Amino acid sequence: MRLASRYASVRLHTLALAEPLSAEDCMAQSMPDASPVKWHLAHTTWFFETFILEHFEPGFAPFHQDFRFLFNSYYNGIGARHPRAQRGLLTRPSLAEVQAYRGNVDHRILRLLAQQLNDSKLAELVTLGLHHEQQHQELILTDVKHLLAQNALHPVYSPDAPQAGSATGPARWIDFEGGVSAQGFDGDGFCFDNELPRHRVFVEPFTMFSRLVTNGEYLAFVEAGAYRDPSLWLSEGWDTVRAQGWSRPIYWQQDEYGAWHEFTLRGLALLDRDLPVTHLSMYEADAYARWAGARLPTEAEWEHAVASDAVGVEQLFGHCWQWTSSSYAPYPGYAAAAGAVGEYNGKFMVNQYVLRGSSVATPTGHARASYRNFFPAQARWQFAGLRLAR
Amino acid sequence: MRLASRYASVRLHTLALAEPLSAEDCMAQSMPDASPVKWHLAHTTWFFETFILEHFEPGFAPFHQDFRFLFNSYYNGIGARHPRAQRGLLTRPSLAEVQAYRGNVDHRILRLLAQQLNDSKLAELVTLGLHHEQQHQELILTDVKHLLAQNALHPVYSPDAPQAGSATGPARWIDFEGGVSAQGFDGDGFCFDNELPRHRVFVEPFTMFSRLVTNGEYLAFVEAGAYRDPSLWLSEGWDTVRAQGWSRPIYWQQDEYGAWHEFTLRGLALLDRDLPVTHLSMYEADAYARWAGARLPTEAEWEHAVASDAVGVEQLFGHCWQWTSSSYAPYPGYAAAAGAVGEYNGKFMVNQYVLRGSSVATPTGHARASYRNFFPAQARWQFAGLRLAR
Amino acid sequence: MRLASRYASVRLHTLALAEPLSAEDCMAQSMPDASPVKWHLAHTTWFFETFILEHFEPGFAPFHQDFRFLFNSYYNGIGARHPRAQRGLLTRPSLAEVQAYRGNVDHRILRLLAQQLNDSKLAELVTLGLHHEQQHQELILTDVKHLLAQNALHPVYSPDAPQAGSATGPARWIDFEGGVSAQGFDGDGFCFDNELPRHRVFVEPFTMFSRLVTNGEYLAFVEAGAYRDPSLWLSEGWDTVRAQGWSRPIYWQQDEYGAWHEFTLRGLALLDRDLPVTHLSMYEADAYARWAGARLPTEAEWEHAVASDAVGVEQLFGHCWQWTSSSYAPYPGYAAAAGAVGEYNGKFMVNQYVLRGSSVATPTGHARASYRNFFPAQARWQFAGLRLAR
Amino acid sequence: MRLASRYASVRLHTLALAEPLSAEDCMAQSMPDASPVKWHLAHTTWFFETFILEHFEPGFAPFHQDFRFLFNSYYNGIGARHPRAQRGLLTRPSLAEVQAYRGNVDHRILRLLAQQLNDSKLAELVTLGLHHEQQHQELILTDVKHLLAQNALHPVYSPDAPQAGSATGPARWIDFEGGVSAQGFDGDGFCFDNELPRHRVFVEPFTMFSRLVTNGEYLAFVEAGAYRDPSLWLSEGWDTVRAQGWSRPIYWQQDEYGAWHEFTLRGLALLDRDLPVTHLSMYEADAYARWAGARLPTEAEWEHAVASDAVGVEQLFGHCWQWTSSSYAPYPGYAAAAGAVGEYNGKFMVNQYVLRGSSVATPTGHARASYRNFFPAQARWQFAGLRLAR
Repeated sequence: MRLASRYASVRLHTLALAEPLSAEDCMAQSMPDASPVKWHLAHTTWFFETFILEHFEPGFAPFHQDFRFLFNSYYNGIGARHPRAQRGLLTRPSLAEVQAYRGNVDHRILRLLAQQLNDSKLAELVTLGLHHEQQHQELILTDVKHLLAQNALHPVYSPDAPQAGSATGPARWIDFEGGVSAQGFDGDGFCFDNELPRHRVFVEPFTMFSRLVTNGEYLAFVEAGAYRDPSLWLSEGWDTVRAQGWSRPIYWQQDEYGAWHEFTLRGLALLDRDLPVTHLSMYEADAYARWAGARLPTEAEWEHAVASDAVGVEQLFGHCWQWTSSSYAPYPGYAAAAGAVGEYNGKFMVNQYVLRGSSVATPTGHARASYRNFFPAQARWQFAGLRLAR
Repeated sequence: MRLASRYASVRLHTLALAEPLSAEDCMAQSMPDASPVKWHLAHTTWFFETFILEHFEPGFAPFHQDFRFLFNSYYNGIGARHPRAQRGLLTRPSLAEVQAYRGNVDHRILRLLAQQLNDSKLAELVTLGLHHEQQHQELILTDVKHLLAQNALHPVYSPDAPQAGSATGPARWIDFEGGVSAQGFDGDGFCFDNELPRHRVFVEPFTMFSRLVTNGEYLAFVEAGAYRDPSLWLSEGWDTVRAQGWSRPIYWQQDEYGAWHEFTLRGLALLDRDLPVTHLSMYEADAYARWAGARLPTEAEWEHAVASDAVGVEQLFGHCWQWTSSSYAPYPGYAAAAGAVGEYNGKFMVNQYVLRGSSVATPTGHARASYRNFFPAQARWQFAGLRLAR
Repeated sequence: MRLASRYASVRLHTLALAEPLSAEDCMAQSMPDASPVKWHLAHTTWFFETFILEHFEPGFAPFHQDFRFLFNSYYNGIGARHPRAQRGLLTRPSLAEVQAYRGNVDHRILRLLAQQLNDSKLAELVTLGLHHEQQHQELILTDVKHLLAQNALHPVYSPDAPQAGSATGPARWIDFEGGVSAQGFDGDGFCFDNELPRHRVFVEPFTMFSRLVTNGEYLAFVEAGAYRDPSLWLSEGWDTVRAQGWSRPIYWQQDEYGAWHEFTLRGLALLDRDLPVTHLSMYEADAYARWAGARLPTEAEWEHAVASDAVGVEQLFGHCWQWTSSSYAPYPGYAAAAGAVGEYNGKFMVNQYVLRGSSVATPTGHARASYRNFFPAQARWQFAGLRLAR
Repeated sequence: MRLASRYASVRLHTLALAEPLSAEDCMAQSMPDASPVKWHLAHTTWFFETFILEHFEPGFAPFHQDFRFLFNSYYNGIGARHPRAQRGLLTRPSLAEVQAYRGNVDHRILRLLAQQLNDSKLAELVTLGLHHEQQHQELILTDVKHLLAQNALHPVYSPDAPQAGSATGPARWIDFEGGVSAQGFDGDGFCFDNELPRHRVFVEPFTMFSRLVTNGEYLAFVEAGAYRDPSLWLSEGWDTVRAQGWSRPIYWQQDEYGAWHEFTLRGLALLDRDLPVTHLSMYEADAYARWAGARLPTEAEWEHAVASDAVGVEQLFGHCWQWTSSSYAPYPGYAAAAGAVGEYNGKFMVNQYVLRGSSVATPTGHARASYRNFFPAQARWQFAGLRLAR
């Protein structure tokens, strides 16, 4: 697809995600880790305005001087920012004004793309901006789900919201011989800087399960009293279980008759035992694995398994992200880009854990075998489940 | 005015206060102490539905079962409540639905009033509900002001928002002889239970200033370094100054040229030195008084001064609430009403201080000489200033 | 008693209180509100050195320059201070060095008293210092009790530690007519500045119970489920009950057979139902009174009752402090002393409640009818109980 | 050395470390992460009593029933524990009683060793207990240093306290070819479970500096304004710098003339620019490395460098621990021991970073090339510095 078409397509998809939501829905922030949809809509636009228009557009003037401040996320190099935990207080600009901002920037970017067809630096930054926007598309769904889950009315985001599927093949352990294995992005297209450089790792022999852990399997763990047994948990995990009063996955609830339900983007639903369990913290995924006599895979094992094209491995992409036991760290030889764009990945490489694959909320074509998602071990609001290894 | 007319008038005034605001403005909550306008609109309606319709309407059915839970403020007797600090997450019901809720309850209350004209218990509860609504009318303005003040765009609530005036008479100290003085409500109309019973207090001779402390006077205190001098402050006040980094009243800011501005409901404005200083905590009011060689009046002195009809005392009502040094406590013989309505006042009688008078945000006809407003000593978002005594 | 004798007697009594304790016991701080015994020993000495020796002793030199910093409590006028919450980290100076400090200052004060017999300002400050020391004598017992209570070994402070007694006369309500009543210190001896000036208050007719509330009565309140019933509590009290998980008085515990025990300075003991209940917060005292269909007295009522010399009122002094419903506030005409000594009382007059009487831990001769003790409403580690009024 | 001799030697060395300290010094706890020396003395003894005497001694009876509770550190399998943050409140048992406890357990262990000479399980557990004790020997020094540093008197632990030395050889970058490299313990003696199993890793070519970063080099970083420049820090590191107000290493201070001093176990001393910088958090080490155009080594690189026996690499052991960029994670095939002893290492393998080498505080013979020390990224009170890699 030509870049301009792709730009239009990605940008419109973001609007489509916001379409089932009211201006009120788009403004609320349910916790500091989540952002309002309106903020996602504005911030992704700010990214194009700040990193592209400001550098490439002749006679550039900002759409609104204060938006530079309001919609900066974490780029210290760009200057001061509105406090992250107070994004839900931005009743102004209105959603309509933010949509006007999007329209204005879209118009200018498309004009720029038409005029500077062969500027490879421009194309590279627009491509980065689109992948950045796709990351926020996934966050829009995770953040809206968390917001709606706070509401006693159990509101429906959309009756057509995406949903994971169950495994189809036989469930079994699949063996891998390991050895020196190449890891990292290898190809012509786009990748994030954290997937580079491609390098060698040594993988000891291991075995991995053919499918993801299911809701039914995880329910057995819950009902076995796992949330009351410290021996199953990492020390920090157990501290978190007690401090936060965890007793089940974040969106599960049991009704007065003992039936288990799960809050979904389609509203409250009976728990489907065949679907992959999701919205787990790494602490919960790790504890489940220990209880099951297994462990989480490392990210090298996961990528090695995909590269091995092993027969029978399913649910790698498009159901839920899969926690690994690997701390998010730079690959050997990693270098962040210069300037503010370089604040993208490297500075978060501490106290976070890598997730591999992709989820139902991941935009089509966004993920790949070398993609490294990452969140803190206690994060529960992402579409994150697990696959066992030994 | 007949009760039905008064009902309609008060209820419409609430809507008028919300009129300059978008649905987004009405949904945000800037801090746990403040509530969203939409919540105020719904909660005041919930009050009429719960305490009146449920008891008086034949065949009562709630407008929406969950609203009982969502819009309860603090009445433990009524059951569970939505967490106070998360009122800003209620994107559903929408503002339009809340307005429909208001319309429905208004219709039913007015029908009830037409049918049960002579039920004095009904009339009494409707009157209580209207005074309760008026308290929330003032809170709508204080809470919206706090919300808009968080926004770097300095949004305007309304160019016609109410504003205090400056004193007109000569500024001077006025002496009072004191003695045994009656305190508490005395009359035929409505009062809150905390204004009763009328009783005697002994007031030693004192002197009170004819007008409120002005912005200009308070600025001199700021510029004298008062926020850096522990000797002027109550010990807890000084701890708060340091922990919160206070250096000026909450809505004041100084621009790069040294000029002082104040955020108001009309937007950011140059500080008017003749107007009464407002949005002070009791700690700040107390420190200013100490710096000025004076003190805050007690609530008995304040009420005694009003009752004495002293020549020359101005700005008692309609400019800003006036901190007293009196802790909020029950009057001798005070008894809370039975049942959930009785949770109205008594249970807050600890660690709060009484403010007397009324402010620009107080609805017409709401306050009176015996009215007891109360807030914690550190509260700054109310329209609260001070009058000196000695 | 001559002042020098009195000085020696009070100072020795402090050492006697520390006598049953090891150097380790004297160094620990169980919470920021409590202080180590070693700190009390040093701080009371610092008071004499700073406010007396420094001003009256020719050629004054401090015992140790850093003690000025280490043992200042809250006197901002004197300069920087060691952080309050870290007093338990002062392993140096050792207890032996602090005792040497006491000996040195005692020697110098006694020499001064011998030389400047007729200096009334000196006598006044020494007297203030001795009353200050007596306040710390009581705190030594309350703070040590709290410290030892944290230890699973239930250590004994002393088998001879003081203990309250039970009431002896008939239990009954005693009526008071009230009227204009004088309040505040009236006499020749010493009093604190917060007991002055003597002034008039109006007291409405009231009735007060002849004795204190007992452990047995309070146990009935506990067993009636009071700690689970929000209707009995002030709103802040109920928030505290839930946040802190309160379910009984701080030093009570129930063994596996259901028997109630109380941790005392003599170790763990069976709960004596006839003794006055003590170590209550004001929230607990207030809730008990409400449950019993009564209320806490005001401080004016309490003092009026004592002044009335009413037949049958017992347990006023020497058992436990008695919470009143009165916020700690300055009397009309109150003025703090000039200089750092003036930081003694006035700056604490906010968000604290007055207790009257005295406790088993109060040194002989320290309390009087006009004495105003004060603590925050949530404080539980003082010897504080209650007497009912209506 | 025979095991009994080794037992006696290690246990006596612990007492020698406590010898310069008073009972008061041994009781204080300066923060929840640190423990009182008395607690270290008792807990290491508890380890021998609980994991050895209880299982091997015929007719075992505990020295004191409550010590089981008081001196358990984190072994959930053993039962309830005294709260970690309140270890500084254990004034009883006294230091003398804890020393009696040590003597009693020592006597019984030595008797057991004499009687059951050939029990290999016993020998294995005693050996584990001695290595555990050596870990606490290092913690005694780090914790005492932190405690004494809180005291404005700058107390001296010992004028003979151990001290790092400066590098002696030429400073230069040393290249390593990398490749498949074996990692993990390989030998006959003792190692912790986290050093096993020995396994293969792939190490890309890298270069490492011959010596540690010095105080002088780090001072240049401080003086270049690094603590005010977010671009040098990991995002969490920068948040910590601001939240905690960091502006220099924890034990550094600048006097009024601009001279830099460092608090040491020998008291306050002028900063020696040639010694290795120490007491850095991983955030500080990482930021310094970025500023210097380098990075932290991985633990595989560090161990590979040692195994390569590279000419010119110095200060590997005995000066300060060296932060690596490796998250603390299990080696492939790692399995924790069964039972409570198995709580030793595995459950801490999240959100901690590995340090390699050893420090001046590490007991002789305790560390080795495969030794994995670990602390959270924000920990500053350990003897931790850094060595650069690229």
